[in-house]
Amino acid sequence: MFFPLMAAGSVGELPPGLLTLGQLLASLLVIYIASKIGGELALRLKQPSVLGELVAGLGVGVSGLHLIDPTQPVLLLLAQVGVTLLLFEIGLESDLRSLLKLGPQALAVAVVGMFLPFALGYAVMKFTGAPDLLAVFVGSTATATSIGISAKVLSDLGYLQRPEGQIILGAAVIDDILGVVVLSVVAGIAKGGSLEWGEVARIVLSSLGFLVGAIVMGNWFMPFFLKTVRWLRTRGDLLTASLVFAFSLAWIAEQVGSAAIIGAFAAGLVLADTDKRQDLEHQLRPVTDFFLPVFFIMVGAGVNLALLKNQEALFLALALSATAVLGKLVCGWAAFGIPADKWIIGAGMVPRGEVGLVFASVGLATGVLSGVNHTAVVLMVISTTFLGPLLLSLMLRRKPTKPPLKEEATAEMY
Amino acid sequence: MFFPLMAAGSVGELPPGLLTLGQLLASLLVIYIASKIGGELALRLKQPSVLGELVAGLGVGVSGLHLIDPTQPVLLLLAQVGVTLLLFEIGLESDLRSLLKLGPQALAVAVVGMFLPFALGYAVMKFTGAPDLLAVFVGSTATATSIGISAKVLSDLGYLQRPEGQIILGAAVIDDILGVVVLSVVAGIAKGGSLEWGEVARIVLSSLGFLVGAIVMGNWFMPFFLKTVRWLRTRGDLLTASLVFAFSLAWIAEQVGSAAIIGAFAAGLVLADTDKRQDLEHQLRPVTDFFLPVFFIMVGAGVNLALLKNQEALFLALALSATAVLGKLVCGWAAFGIPADKWIIGAGMVPRGEVGLVFASVGLATGVLSGVNHTAVVLMVISTTFLGPLLLSLMLRRKPTKPPLKEEATAEMY
Repeated sequence: MFFPLMAAGSVGELPPGLLTLGQLLASLLVIYIASKIGGELALRLKQPSVLGELVAGLGVGVSGLHLIDPTQPVLLLLAQVGVTLLLFEIGLESDLRSLLKLGPQALAVAVVGMFLPFALGYAVMKFTGAPDLLAVFVGSTATATSIGISAKVLSDLGYLQRPEGQIILGAAVIDDILGVVVLSVVAGIAKGGSLEWGEVARIVLSSLGFLVGAIVMGNWFMPFFLKTVRWLRTRGDLLTASLVFAFSLAWIAEQVGSAAIIGAFAAGLVLADTDKRQDLEHQLRPVTDFFLPVFFIMVGAGVNLALLKNQEALFLALALSATAVLGKLVCGWAAFGIPADKWIIGAGMVPRGEVGLVFASVGLATGVLSGVNHTAVVLMVISTTFLGPLLLSLMLRRKPTKPPLKEEATAEMY
Repeated sequence: MFFPLMAAGSVGELPPGLLTLGQLLASLLVIYIASKIGGELALRLKQPSVLGELVAGLGVGVSGLHLIDPTQPVLLLLAQVGVTLLLFEIGLESDLRSLLKLGPQALAVAVVGMFLPFALGYAVMKFTGAPDLLAVFVGSTATATSIGISAKVLSDLGYLQRPEGQIILGAAVIDDILGVVVLSVVAGIAKGGSLEWGEVARIVLSSLGFLVGAIVMGNWFMPFFLKTVRWLRTRGDLLTASLVFAFSLAWIAEQVGSAAIIGAFAAGLVLADTDKRQDLEHQLRPVTDFFLPVFFIMVGAGVNLALLKNQEALFLALALSATAVLGKLVCGWAAFGIPADKWIIGAGMVPRGEVGLVFASVGLATGVLSGVNHTAVVLMVISTTFLGPLLLSLMLRRKPTKPPLKEEATAEMY
């Protein structure tokens, strides 16, 4: 059978889980329309657009109109491609060297900002009598700050060039690197089904080893790559070559037991260091824009609000949200030795995003998170994404600031 | 189940036909690498890159390394998305008004250039004792000139601005419009299983009706669309809004019994008439580049050269190729009343491309084309794609010409 559905859908039945072209187009229409309505309304309400997309996903998913099935395998596959491309793009926007230059303050904020929310989330779960594996998983979901959301909020409020803004950005980038390592640790543990510290060490080492190895090997490979791109003359030369590079590392990462997104992120970091970075970002952006809304809408669509009738889920969501905000707020004080407003730094670290949602997805897929836990964790991510910008703008209004910079096209967040 | 494969592939088995993220990435890697190697080598051999991609598809498919399964449903779906995006892009590059201005010559060349190859192909098939439906189908595959290939060849040889070049381009655009109408006629007939002329008229009318209606309604809708795009402030504003427009028309086209690609093409024609055209082409290009190689490689991968051992297939491929070239060569003489080289116009119309391959795919899917017929038809498309540029450059070398223009990035073909 070749293109069964170009012949007007009459040829045979598709196996379960597959989509016809018409069904795929209809799903994408729902996803794009919902994500734009949600994103634009969120921006108008001075909120990050990703927040609106998640809420829109709620509206078209199992808690709303039931237009999108959050378990549809083809859409899940496209969502995964979207996240892979997003991490490639985030790598591309990161700069390892300026990151290192930003100094120990950003590192301290990042490390404290990962440890505290983890410990608090772990404590909350142990308090409810959860097993170690579940407590570790939930704690992990609270660790990673959303670099996209933080950067967007700082840029919107004209705070990107201040010391506080610089530290937040640096710490968020480190967070992002550590976050994907934690993700593969936790995914590996979930796969094993139990928490063994030797196994944790092995995964940390193999994830870090892969990341370092990929960056070193990648940099070594770059002259050959750039020479190849210069030699190419067909359409899509740079984009296709870069996708081959990113998908290769993503594929290898998965083969060695790490996660595809770590490979894509490493590929982005390596390519960020070349003169092709801007061209590539420009070309990659529309492709990410094609796939990524599928991810956010599917995440929102999978949240079952009916579970909040469950007292346990409601309590858990509130407790996790409180500790998630508290843990990041306090971490600002780790920025030692500089005259910066520590609370502002902390507030800038509050919004969680993509990585936390990926954690939640992995947790649900592996069965570590129950529906109740998954819903509570996703609501925690949503509430921090709400509260972060809110806290930050409240704090900044206490101080005299320059008028907000005009929003740049490149500062649009996810 | 959510993101089963981010958790290192351990969670449950996928239903048949579905792919894990790792499997999809591996397939895309094979597709991208093969299409780049094929495309670049073809360019170096002064051939259109699409030719090299088809041959590369042969190399990785059932006639070669067996790295790509041409029946894999998810890859077929992505290939269909690629063709839908391609037709959207072709619509966007077409200009209805300048097309009308180009006058009766282009129309005459297009109509004769569709009728002659159709009649010759039909005759060849009837000569072999084929039933009407099969003969109509094979004849149809020979009708549509590849606008991408023609434009690329003319630009490469510095002939784009001459009267011959203008007529070829205009006729190829008309060909493209008529070709998609013929496609939906033929697909509809194949669906019905028999050839009824009343049904043909109904499909022609509903396809043309949809096309005209979509363009008229689309133009009426455009001010609202453009106002919406200006209002949007999130990332991917223009691209996502345009995809919603294109996918809506594609979906409607499929619902009314036409083909999704006709809807996408109509959406492109409507958007071509706005000031957003260039921006959109720029943003759409990387997305098409992501999906389209899947189509070309899958088409090549599905060709079973072992069938050529079959005397019937070999004879058919040769006969169809000869009539396909002859039919288009002669049609140049329909360009009445202007001092142009008629043979050059004819040679410029020879290369077939995307639409012919889509025909072949539909024919195989609906069971109208046997494996032997499908292979012969695809080889006909491949051979015209070879012979067209070859004939054209031979003829142009007989005349004094300006030195070839430097190849423009925008003239890259598919």
